[in-house]
Amino acid sequence: MKGAVLHGPRDVRYEDRAEPKIVRSTDAIIRMSATCVCGSDLWPYRGFNPAAEPSPMGHEYCGIVEEVGREVTSVKPGQFVIGSFFASDNSCPICKAGYQSSCQHAEFVGGAQAPLLRVPLADGTLVATPGAPSTDMIPSLLATSDVFGTGWFAADAANVKPGMTVAVVGDGAVGLLGALSAKRMGAERIIAMSRHEARQRLAREFGATDIVTERGEEGVARIKDLTNGIGADAVLECVGTQESMKQAIGSARKGGYVSYVGVPHGVQLEGQELFFAHVHLHGGPAPVRRFLPKLIDLVLNGKVDPGKVFDLALPLDQVAEGYRAMDERRAIKTLLQP
Amino acid sequence: MKGAVLHGPRDVRYEDRAEPKIVRSTDAIIRMSATCVCGSDLWPYRGFNPAAEPSPMGHEYCGIVEEVGREVTSVKPGQFVIGSFFASDNSCPICKAGYQSSCQHAEFVGGAQAPLLRVPLADGTLVATPGAPSTDMIPSLLATSDVFGTGWFAADAANVKPGMTVAVVGDGAVGLLGALSAKRMGAERIIAMSRHEARQRLAREFGATDIVTERGEEGVARIKDLTNGIGADAVLECVGTQESMKQAIGSARKGGYVSYVGVPHGVQLEGQELFFAHVHLHGGPAPVRRFLPKLIDLVLNGKVDPGKVFDLALPLDQVAEGYRAMDERRAIKTLLQP
Repeated sequence: MKGAVLHGPRDVRYEDRAEPKIVRSTDAIIRMSATCVCGSDLWPYRGFNPAAEPSPMGHEYCGIVEEVGREVTSVKPGQFVIGSFFASDNSCPICKAGYQSSCQHAEFVGGAQAPLLRVPLADGTLVATPGAPSTDMIPSLLATSDVFGTGWFAADAANVKPGMTVAVVGDGAVGLLGALSAKRMGAERIIAMSRHEARQRLAREFGATDIVTERGEEGVARIKDLTNGIGADAVLECVGTQESMKQAIGSARKGGYVSYVGVPHGVQLEGQELFFAHVHLHGGPAPVRRFLPKLIDLVLNGKVDPGKVFDLALPLDQVAEGYRAMDERRAIKTLLQP
Repeated sequence: MKGAVLHGPRDVRYEDRAEPKIVRSTDAIIRMSATCVCGSDLWPYRGFNPAAEPSPMGHEYCGIVEEVGREVTSVKPGQFVIGSFFASDNSCPICKAGYQSSCQHAEFVGGAQAPLLRVPLADGTLVATPGAPSTDMIPSLLATSDVFGTGWFAADAANVKPGMTVAVVGDGAVGLLGALSAKRMGAERIIAMSRHEARQRLAREFGATDIVTERGEEGVARIKDLTNGIGADAVLECVGTQESMKQAIGSARKGGYVSYVGVPHGVQLEGQELFFAHVHLHGGPAPVRRFLPKLIDLVLNGKVDPGKVFDLALPLDQVAEGYRAMDERRAIKTLLQP
């Protein structure tokens, strides 16, 4: 089969790869219905943390179970399933506490930008839909695999509750779905920080009530203006840079909550600054598995349409253009169809 | 009157100071029943953040109201009162959210190691006891002013709940009272990290079930050993150094809670390490005012005896020896009697 492989900065190729096989008796092989490019794929694409060898790309997936190992009992061939980028046993104490992405047996699921994917720990990782979903549901179901799950975690980790004022730093797909998640959790006011018109529109569609275009200290000042000098009750940091983290912490009220869900790159937090900011800080790799059943349900019941973040759909063999469009911010998120 | 004044590293003098007067109509003057030396007083005492001018010391206090400004309505002369080191209006949105130490009108209350003290925002800051407490209650009531309130915040900010395994980094008075607070909140297992015999004994008396003497990476490994490789559900960081913070974060389980309540000195947190540690992090100056009514009640009803942290009591004019004893770790905490 062919799949996406990163060879170096801005060099993604659709090329021959070995077809995945069952390696352990707890594995499943799924045939991809759709996959996509993640904002986090852009870090290596742009040359951060370069890999020594060509790397198969992609970690968002949904599709039909093709084959399962002999120990797998919860999913079977023919079922439509969705899983997270971290395989988990969903039974260890860490999983039971709701942190499946740090499962004691966690394994990263890579190489999803391909027609077939091996998913380890299938029983603890995959969630099957009640039946075969209609084609128009696929983008939103795919979104639950990572980007919606991560946006939901951003809102959950920032303790969003009914009536709160929430600020979202970052207008990528995760930030936009953070806004949607905050809306579902009852936030009264949702301030999206964005200077990109199409993204502002989608943010509003997802529930944002205010748009702030300023960044850095000016952005913080603007949030303070909008909140009687107090700051937001909850701030979702969905970028992962030093500037965005500072902006998020500065935008929160004393005693408020800041979540961060993008892998931080070059972020250093000064202890005394954080101490006097007086915020709650929580983040890490989103434990998407915790939220999958609920999010799939929201999608299947038509309550949310997170698939709207896909503003570009390409055949899988045009994956290189999918990366380019996101890198150049021509697309929010690229859907790839095998 | 005379009071404690820091002139430079390890140079505390009991010397003439102007007697405090009502400055604003919301002030109160209290006559000290007892005051004490705080672990945080040792930072400037040891020469960190040296002040340009001689500084009146002390911020823990309880005593009898001597005089109030004309706007003060909730306390009156003759009442026994306790307050926190941050005066607060207790009515702004930040106070209402329970973060009185970051009140929009917060003012640091300094110079408490003296027979008289001016307390700003008396209505929002001071809590009166139902009657005049007996002398033997004074140490424990004084403890609520900061060290017990801060230990309680450490446990509260680390989300301690019944049945949890809690680790406490730091065997100073705050750490010891963090252990006591965790016990009151229902923690099942409380691991005190201490290598000092008298402090270990008090930790056990306050509810610690295990003692770990190792520090740094060895300390983390020991906590992991004691928790089936998982880490503690909640970790209370009660020191404020880079080493103690790293130890605390490393000792928590994925998805667990880390609180930090001592002003960090030279602490830098690396974003990606924190991200993959997957912890909740919360700290800052303890909003003691939030807890005062409850803690005073616990003391007056004989449920707790936080005053046990005072293992040295001196007349106020021997304040210099009080600092020395704590600096040299001969005393856990020094009570000072005017």
